[in-house]
Amino acid sequence: MTTLIVMRPLFHPSIEEVTVEGILHALSDPARVAMFADIVAQACPQSCSNFLTVSDKAIPKSTLSQHFKILREAGLIRSERHGVEMNNISRCTELEQRFPGLIRAIVTAHAIQSADEARAKMAAARRPAKRLTAK
Amino acid sequence: MTTLIVMRPLFHPSIEEVTVEGILHALSDPARVAMFADIVAQACPQSCSNFLTVSDKAIPKSTLSQHFKILREAGLIRSERHGVEMNNISRCTELEQRFPGLIRAIVTAHAIQSADEARAKMAAARRPAKRLTAK
Repeated sequence: MTTLIVMRPLFHPSIEEVTVEGILHALSDPARVAMFADIVAQACPQSCSNFLTVSDKAIPKSTLSQHFKILREAGLIRSERHGVEMNNISRCTELEQRFPGLIRAIVTAHAIQSADEARAKMAAARRPAKRLTAK
Repeated sequence: MTTLIVMRPLFHPSIEEVTVEGILHALSDPARVAMFADIVAQACPQSCSNFLTVSDKAIPKSTLSQHFKILREAGLIRSERHGVEMNNISRCTELEQRFPGLIRAIVTAHAIQSADEARAKMAAARRPAKRLTAK
């Protein structure tokens, strides 16, 4: 017996259908903005399984695929199935033509915030723990 | 008898507490991004009652004050009570120092989208209505 598995086609909006509100909503989640910044930073397509930890936090596979769906349907990434893997690339070039400077500004702001958080974490780690001494 | 009305102080986060995700979430709503773009465009503080219509849509007062609360608590605007009125100004200068280019890019993208929508609406209005004629 041959089992035929029909995969639903992935929805990608045309660049004219992409909205500012859709982009901002998709990137208003800390995990999604970190995933997208990673995809933008890499020249080669990123496989979904590369994101099982984002910003040092483990993310369940089902949550991850929901995040990719939201990024894809907002017009931020293009996904392609390769066997059981899904590869994702950013749609930066098209987005830059539609909304010049928007993606770069968001990714830069995210990088500034991540650097601030890392600095604060290091400073907290260097601070000596309070001693509980009786006077 | 004198009635004393105590107003709760308005919460404004410090600029260090402002997050990219908070800004993007606040501006991912079509009414809020339009309201914020209007505040940014005006040099003088904007009273809440100036926004009873946003993008030609009537907005109830209670919804409006909820929108202002979200913009304020995301660090995008500063609100001041003047009697029964509330005046709002953008925190663009501080935001520009924390996340350079972010606010400008979002407001510009919103303007591009609004112009596209207006053009599409005008083109639709110019198109002759289909005639229902029997052949």
